[in-house]
Amino acid sequence: MLYDPASRYKWRQETGLMETQMSVPEVIRRRRTVRGFKPDPVPEEIVRELARLATCAPSSWNLQPWRIVVVTDEAVRLALQRASYNQKQVGEAPVTFVFAFSLGGWRQDLEPMTAQAERLGAWSPEYAAGVRRNAPTQQELLDKRGLMREFCLRDTVVAATQTALAAESLGLATCLMSGWQEQRIKAAIGAAGDDDLGIGLLLDMGYSVELPRSPGRFPVSHTVSWNRLGVPFPDPRQSGAEGLENNLETARHD
Amino acid sequence: MLYDPASRYKWRQETGLMETQMSVPEVIRRRRTVRGFKPDPVPEEIVRELARLATCAPSSWNLQPWRIVVVTDEAVRLALQRASYNQKQVGEAPVTFVFAFSLGGWRQDLEPMTAQAERLGAWSPEYAAGVRRNAPTQQELLDKRGLMREFCLRDTVVAATQTALAAESLGLATCLMSGWQEQRIKAAIGAAGDDDLGIGLLLDMGYSVELPRSPGRFPVSHTVSWNRLGVPFPDPRQSGAEGLENNLETARHD
Repeated sequence: MLYDPASRYKWRQETGLMETQMSVPEVIRRRRTVRGFKPDPVPEEIVRELARLATCAPSSWNLQPWRIVVVTDEAVRLALQRASYNQKQVGEAPVTFVFAFSLGGWRQDLEPMTAQAERLGAWSPEYAAGVRRNAPTQQELLDKRGLMREFCLRDTVVAATQTALAAESLGLATCLMSGWQEQRIKAAIGAAGDDDLGIGLLLDMGYSVELPRSPGRFPVSHTVSWNRLGVPFPDPRQSGAEGLENNLETARHD
Repeated sequence: MLYDPASRYKWRQETGLMETQMSVPEVIRRRRTVRGFKPDPVPEEIVRELARLATCAPSSWNLQPWRIVVVTDEAVRLALQRASYNQKQVGEAPVTFVFAFSLGGWRQDLEPMTAQAERLGAWSPEYAAGVRRNAPTQQELLDKRGLMREFCLRDTVVAATQTALAAESLGLATCLMSGWQEQRIKAAIGAAGDDDLGIGLLLDMGYSVELPRSPGRFPVSHTVSWNRLGVPFPDPRQSGAEGLENNLETARHD
């Protein structure tokens, strides 16, 4: 084992959970996509904590378009696997979070969300009035321009990514998945024919059978520009032929 | 000030940076969307580190479709502000990461990426051969079905979210932004008329003039289901009318 998280766990009274003391950058560097899970279940308290953390994500107008289905039932997990080109890690993982989104949920959600923000003193009455007035106009415009799905997807993927990093920090292995058929995933979670629902991302989690090696990354100069697209971002650690290796050094786990 | 990050910083030899000792769940809970930034610049080393961390994100086939433009130049920042319905935080923030993506970059990137993964021993020759054979077919299919943009957006938002949480952990305040006009953002970063490029998300960062209060979140039972959509996720901390408040208790910063 390359890294022993147990040695760095600490108890947090607030959540009642053991948590690794890895910082966010450490978790980002050590995370690897895992495609083989042990049958060991994930403690319920961890799953609950992740559900809460998922919903802490920011979203456009704070409308929280995500609709998350936490799947632990074996029959549903196997249905998800079949909907994902039969990738075995989906059925193996004891828990999968299906990050779906509601295209029209904002119509019911806008008022209670705004009232809460006002009551909590986060939004002034003037700001809240602006949201009540402007959000519906903007949302209708997105609908008309065919951009609503993209808007909901964006916020939902933010929530999914937060959850993946949080799961890693709680000692789990994860697999963020794009390879599935939307209609079949919807059917698996009991939402066949629900036109309001889209699927954003699947997140399998559990305990890994192995810690895979990193396949590496392109050098920062290939995918990051500075001020204008195509002007390579200057990173003294990465230049010329060494780029691939150098970014890899920082990208892979220790 | 509700939270003093300075008291919990530690020096990390690996990156040469001071890092807070907040765990991922702590960062997720304490993060607030900030809409007012001080003029103080962000140290170059932090910006470089964030660029590296952004590119550690996982992606479909490891194709890394993101094209990130790190904007520090004032003229470009002001152009981004005008492209974002003149939201003042965009021009104020000393640094904005524009998370764009390339729809067709995979054609050039597939071979060097696969060769690297093979050389690093992450992918066996058989697995690499499978990727060389299957990835182009799948990508062409996405193109045909009009799903390529969504696929690229998904991976790009994962990278953006990682960067936002990493920035928070390095003591910065952030604002993830969906409110902008795509063509004008492309023009601002020198990519007007580039049909290969899409814009995923903007991430403003810097030092905050204030720590805003949380507008709250819906209770987990409203946005999270269990095994089937519409079956509320059981969370003993959240039931009935207390739900809104309870999730808020965990969602807001201390």
